[in-house]
Amino acid sequence: MTTDYETTVGMLREAVATFADAREWRPFHSPKNLAMSIAIEAAELMEHFQWLTEDQAWVAAGGAGVAEELADVLIYCLTLSNALDLDVTGAVLAKLQVNEGNYPAAEFRGRFRRPEREKGNDAL
Amino acid sequence: MTTDYETTVGMLREAVATFADAREWRPFHSPKNLAMSIAIEAAELMEHFQWLTEDQAWVAAGGAGVAEELADVLIYCLTLSNALDLDVTGAVLAKLQVNEGNYPAAEFRGRFRRPEREKGNDAL
Amino acid sequence: MTTDYETTVGMLREAVATFADAREWRPFHSPKNLAMSIAIEAAELMEHFQWLTEDQAWVAAGGAGVAEELADVLIYCLTLSNALDLDVTGAVLAKLQVNEGNYPAAEFRGRFRRPEREKGNDAL
Amino acid sequence: MTTDYETTVGMLREAVATFADAREWRPFHSPKNLAMSIAIEAAELMEHFQWLTEDQAWVAAGGAGVAEELADVLIYCLTLSNALDLDVTGAVLAKLQVNEGNYPAAEFRGRFRRPEREKGNDAL
Repeated sequence: MTTDYETTVGMLREAVATFADAREWRPFHSPKNLAMSIAIEAAELMEHFQWLTEDQAWVAAGGAGVAEELADVLIYCLTLSNALDLDVTGAVLAKLQVNEGNYPAAEFRGRFRRPEREKGNDAL
Repeated sequence: MTTDYETTVGMLREAVATFADAREWRPFHSPKNLAMSIAIEAAELMEHFQWLTEDQAWVAAGGAGVAEELADVLIYCLTLSNALDLDVTGAVLAKLQVNEGNYPAAEFRGRFRRPEREKGNDAL
Repeated sequence: MTTDYETTVGMLREAVATFADAREWRPFHSPKNLAMSIAIEAAELMEHFQWLTEDQAWVAAGGAGVAEELADVLIYCLTLSNALDLDVTGAVLAKLQVNEGNYPAAEFRGRFRRPEREKGNDAL
Repeated sequence: MTTDYETTVGMLREAVATFADAREWRPFHSPKNLAMSIAIEAAELMEHFQWLTEDQAWVAAGGAGVAEELADVLIYCLTLSNALDLDVTGAVLAKLQVNEGNYPAAEFRGRFRRPEREKGNDAL
């Protein structure tokens, strides 16, 4: 288990569960607390790009800090899926299917909004 | 590819990439934009638990909306890993190892802070 | 200018503008950057309550850190209002009026959702 | 009470308190819930600028939606200050003084990081 090509989502969820269980942290892992924690880590990821231009942000994104913060977001996402016994693959594929309906490729090619309505935010 | 047991992280990243490429959305997928999007979806996940007690939040967590929002967070995380060509498994396992050092199981069993310092937030 | 009773919103906006102008920070203060910064500071405020029970959170809320983080959120909100030349008082009062329509007192007394629909989140 | 020039922060806090009290919403207004709500509204504000270039974001910022979302963030900030009986003016001025020490004007003019260390994020 070392790269994305040979690691199942289930194996990654297991690694996260093992870490938490060794510390008996399940009692803290309520949905409300985990959703807060995902949002906190997402903000820390975003902080790496605060005030930067798009070009500067691309440079910053190559740093180790960004990989660590993205990992933190993912660790809490997997922890939540463990707490809820929710299949991540099923949830992601189901959402992609919903998005297929909401964002037909022909209509949204190169754009994240429908041409006819320039207001509002139709993005994924 | 239907459940976490038979799906590699790489396959999931591929599904997300295929969706984006069919719409030619890569130009939007800068690190700064994606970090913002992860944070936006994390807040939408959190919104499902807004004002709820812990007990009410557990009930709400079983709804389809929570699975969809968690999927949205994950889709953007995987999109960011694709944009950066970053191995998710490697990043998560490396961060768990860092956390092993920061939160020794013997010291943090059943607690998310060191006993000696009850102030501050030492949580993961 | 020392307390909320004798300080106008305009005076507070002025204090924030003076600080930024002394550092020639206006070029950084685009709406996109400031919205990101508000979200980052909001997450840092939230971090003070991460993993805490409601009772523990009330205790933590009395600490100086919470006042500092709330101030950070407000400083960026006022900075955004300065960047947009937007009257804060007008915006807040207008939104309260919208909320009066959306959440009639008779219907929402002691509840943040309409009685008839227990799903969804109708909160302010 | 109509503009920032004639409205004290205390008057604005009072308007927010009156709205909440008419609905008996104080029981919901715990620090943990309010911090979550500030973060949720901050994300909704940010959503107005999702995927936009800096130029597009300036245009979007002139819309009514941005003023409404900024008002929502502020309403919850004022609600938290009411819940904690915290003087907003005092907190903001104290934080600006802290920032004066951390970001000396001479050193940070036109930059949000110290010249000597181009890594890390020293921004306000």
